[in-house]
Amino acid sequence: MSVTAAQGFTAAGIAAGIKDNGNPDLALVVNNGPRLAAAGVFTSNRVKAAPVQWTEQVLRGGAVSAVVLNSGGANACTGPKGFQDTHATAEKAADALGGEHNAGEVAVASTGLIGVLLPMDKLLPGIDTAVAALSADGGEAAAVAIKTTDTVHKTASVTQDGWTVGGMAKGAGMLAPGLATMLVVLTTDADLDSATLDRALRAATRTTFDRVDSDGCMSTNDTVLLLASGASGTTPAYESFAEAVRTVCDDLARQLIGDAEGASKDIRIEVVGAADEDDAVEVGRSIARNNLLKCAIHGEDPNWGRVLSAIGTTSAAFDPDRLNVAINGVWVCKNGSVGEDRDLVSMKDREVRITADLATGSASAVIWTNDLTADYVHENSAYSS
Amino acid sequence: MSVTAAQGFTAAGIAAGIKDNGNPDLALVVNNGPRLAAAGVFTSNRVKAAPVQWTEQVLRGGAVSAVVLNSGGANACTGPKGFQDTHATAEKAADALGGEHNAGEVAVASTGLIGVLLPMDKLLPGIDTAVAALSADGGEAAAVAIKTTDTVHKTASVTQDGWTVGGMAKGAGMLAPGLATMLVVLTTDADLDSATLDRALRAATRTTFDRVDSDGCMSTNDTVLLLASGASGTTPAYESFAEAVRTVCDDLARQLIGDAEGASKDIRIEVVGAADEDDAVEVGRSIARNNLLKCAIHGEDPNWGRVLSAIGTTSAAFDPDRLNVAINGVWVCKNGSVGEDRDLVSMKDREVRITADLATGSASAVIWTNDLTADYVHENSAYSS
Repeated sequence: MSVTAAQGFTAAGIAAGIKDNGNPDLALVVNNGPRLAAAGVFTSNRVKAAPVQWTEQVLRGGAVSAVVLNSGGANACTGPKGFQDTHATAEKAADALGGEHNAGEVAVASTGLIGVLLPMDKLLPGIDTAVAALSADGGEAAAVAIKTTDTVHKTASVTQDGWTVGGMAKGAGMLAPGLATMLVVLTTDADLDSATLDRALRAATRTTFDRVDSDGCMSTNDTVLLLASGASGTTPAYESFAEAVRTVCDDLARQLIGDAEGASKDIRIEVVGAADEDDAVEVGRSIARNNLLKCAIHGEDPNWGRVLSAIGTTSAAFDPDRLNVAINGVWVCKNGSVGEDRDLVSMKDREVRITADLATGSASAVIWTNDLTADYVHENSAYSS
Repeated sequence: MSVTAAQGFTAAGIAAGIKDNGNPDLALVVNNGPRLAAAGVFTSNRVKAAPVQWTEQVLRGGAVSAVVLNSGGANACTGPKGFQDTHATAEKAADALGGEHNAGEVAVASTGLIGVLLPMDKLLPGIDTAVAALSADGGEAAAVAIKTTDTVHKTASVTQDGWTVGGMAKGAGMLAPGLATMLVVLTTDADLDSATLDRALRAATRTTFDRVDSDGCMSTNDTVLLLASGASGTTPAYESFAEAVRTVCDDLARQLIGDAEGASKDIRIEVVGAADEDDAVEVGRSIARNNLLKCAIHGEDPNWGRVLSAIGTTSAAFDPDRLNVAINGVWVCKNGSVGEDRDLVSMKDREVRITADLATGSASAVIWTNDLTADYVHENSAYSS
């Protein structure tokens, strides 16, 4: 599991003192080769944290030898000093790792509160500690060290025919597409170049992390990296590899939804009968972001009127008098009006399935979200104070 | 105050038994002329309630002699039967009012739960009761009868140089532009034609009701009507009249925000330095819809990073390194980074002012929203069950 499931990687997770509570807050993932191929996908927020700006540059070279990740501070909206701190972090890691490491191949990712400079007097010595702790079993510790409001650490892996894709993720709040507030590092020992990694990673994130929309809020720090060591000596067929990456991403994305801040329900919204996939995604996101519906689901109330209200705000192709909505398999709305008896709907389970049929075409999409709860409000009204 | 502040109007508000709890639920507003000029603005939701579809047709004639409004049921997503019920309501009102009233000039507006047929066996007899109760002092009773989750009824008026604009509004939840979940009836005794009313109403709603964005959810039933009786015999200058309409709309819009479901803060978001007004509105709405920020405001936490995150998701023209944000007058973010000390910000008052400076141009816009609270969740998770 995690980033050390694949051969050729070592990792560590330690407490550098960035978090006041003494919890682990610094992770290091090292690719020991023979390859250093890498690809990355980043937040589409135009306000990008310093580590995102740095790592986007690193990725242009197509090679990543190590990733330094910290929780306890996002290093976003921190101006030129914030960027200098990220640069110094990469330089320090390259120095501490020695050998052929250079800062231009060290990715950096940060998560935590926006608008606060990182305590570099703790972070830089922490890198020495992390280097000393590197191990081929360090994947779990690394996954623990990137947690913020996560209640559990998140890892996944797939092994096939002698090669493996594994990974870790953090994310519990600010989950919205492009991407969710997440840091994700995936590793593989498959022998593939960075262009192939990039293709597989973009295809996978498009239908997994990018369709997690827990609270509609988009982060400044989202980073998903895929590193290949080539250590298995195996070059899998593209389709097999892409499917393995998608499976690991999907597993981690579901874990993010399952651990979303204050949530009591995981809501799977499937839009069917759409004219095209864009319409299906637009409608799914509109439903996922409807606060009134999210409150209703929290109250186990199959309030399909709020689904129709949400559909009605989109530009998707549909006729309001032909819309159908099922909640947990009961078609409570047929042809835009009252359908089966809403009392037939049981919503006791954590997972709630909403199907919205636009009755227009044959395209579909699935978006995941969570309910809106008093716990979400409490957790997010006290986060920085 | 209310819809009977202007001469030429009578109104009533009674309990027809549509609401199970026996509260007033049926309002009637009658224009006794000599003019029957009218204009209307409706929800931009593509899923429109039956009364919205009906009243849009009525307005095409430019004349409205009466408005029937009910709370206790939205008559939305109710299929052909729902539309027949609205039609029957207008016919009944025209019959009960007698004289020259005809159904084609009777507007209908409904508010309450979506997807439930109205109890016509109670609503239709209620119209007789309302007609019997009509009075030139009935404006307050009418305003009370259209309440749903409103804690107070909402009225406003402006009198100038012998003519008056008055009105009533209901709305406490599902407040989002285009419009908020609101029923509003404005009346005037100014002697103006329907084209002039339409122009003044659209200009007023564009910068008032359409910039109230309490919870991002757009209703199926929003209706704002403006009726002119001409009873003052005065034809004001267009600018004076438009300004009076805007003042009444602004007053009512602020009352909606002040009574938003479960809210503890009224948040005024002013975007300045925008390249154009569209950019300013887009950025304002994005900030207004950021659940994480709304939770932070609830917690009296001046979390400007969440403001920047929200700005970053828009397509507006700006440079992330030049953004400035003030909360209650303290510029906590300067040039996209840490500004004045956030501890200087006091957020004890109900009203919180956020200023976002895009530092690009000279356009601006103001959007109002509310904080996100546990009370909002409680109220909306139990609404229909």
